[in-house]
Amino acid sequence: MPISPGSLARLLRLIVVTDRRLADPGDVTEIVAEALQAGALAVQLREKAQPPREVLPLARRLRADTRRHGALFFVNDRLDLALAAEADGVHLGPDDLPVRATRELAPPGFLIGYSADEVDKARLAVRDGADYIGCGTVYPTATKRDAGRVTGIEGLRTVARAINAPVVGIGGVTPARAPAVVAAGAAGCAAIGAVMAAANPRRAVADFLRAAKHGARQP
Amino acid sequence: MPISPGSLARLLRLIVVTDRRLADPGDVTEIVAEALQAGALAVQLREKAQPPREVLPLARRLRADTRRHGALFFVNDRLDLALAAEADGVHLGPDDLPVRATRELAPPGFLIGYSADEVDKARLAVRDGADYIGCGTVYPTATKRDAGRVTGIEGLRTVARAINAPVVGIGGVTPARAPAVVAAGAAGCAAIGAVMAAANPRRAVADFLRAAKHGARQP
Repeated sequence: MPISPGSLARLLRLIVVTDRRLADPGDVTEIVAEALQAGALAVQLREKAQPPREVLPLARRLRADTRRHGALFFVNDRLDLALAAEADGVHLGPDDLPVRATRELAPPGFLIGYSADEVDKARLAVRDGADYIGCGTVYPTATKRDAGRVTGIEGLRTVARAINAPVVGIGGVTPARAPAVVAAGAAGCAAIGAVMAAANPRRAVADFLRAAKHGARQP
Repeated sequence: MPISPGSLARLLRLIVVTDRRLADPGDVTEIVAEALQAGALAVQLREKAQPPREVLPLARRLRADTRRHGALFFVNDRLDLALAAEADGVHLGPDDLPVRATRELAPPGFLIGYSADEVDKARLAVRDGADYIGCGTVYPTATKRDAGRVTGIEGLRTVARAINAPVVGIGGVTPARAPAVVAAGAAGCAAIGAVMAAANPRRAVADFLRAAKHGARQP
């Protein structure tokens, strides 16, 4: 069943992005479970180093958990892995299969996110079939080394104003910064370290959701 | 249009496997073009290091060239990339998406190859939906560092006897060794360095095809 852009935007208020290394010594599935209990409505599995054969069981586990909570589930980088896990979508970057090729292969209603730090790239991705844009790095961070340049809040605002799809701010976003991200026009935030490495992931997610909601109320 | 196992076996008499590093300073597309002119009926694109975005144009080029020659075209490791390039199939290894998950996602008639060095693994792969098995390393080689243990000709023979699908011998196979590979029960050989790094790829392919045909005539 296709999802409307408005509904998608609401579900993307917070994307909890996994990172096995940041979660260590905690367990990714446990942290995601806590995040879901706290109300997270979107989870993205991001495993850059593990082979697909090993990632698939984790992806299927997270798919089952997110489904139980009515949350969206995305897999990073690979359409085949995302489809094998019955994910709702795939999140692509500039090195991955192009958005257009992915859209042609994906079943109807399958969601495609794309990482773009500039208006032109974001527009092209949406034109080619992306449903939402991950825009950043909003704040400098050590987590996403492949994330490209720092856009800052102003770069995020420029992209969010220019394109006709939900934009999610990523990179160094914390609950304290979430209101500024949403006030800049983003539908929400993507959090890696701020949830994965949190002492209390459940509270971090609750804080994010409250803060993003607060930001959305601002003019 | 589905292909019969018998037809597939004949087409797999030689799989020319690409390797950008071995081809250097030559060009992979030129070497493949020569191989096709010499009668190669199967080409496998093997790019481990390049990002998918960069591999896709090469894959599409090789797809067009193989199609013009009526040759099969396989892409290594990734179903999504293989589908985006309109390849005939994907060749998977133990680290990739499992054969069963790939078969469930693949369109009808799509071919799946799987690398297996033992009977049990090969049987399981065929049961899960693999159309052919790449078996090796037949002869020790520096090319395929991820190829696992050396099976030798006897290991190849054991696998070829045990399973009900074409088996292709890979690893250090040369035209001079092709008759032994085929005599051991393999449908053919997969060649990486013996074609990619050949002084005369066209002659190497012709020698392979002649030698494999000769081996097949032996008892």
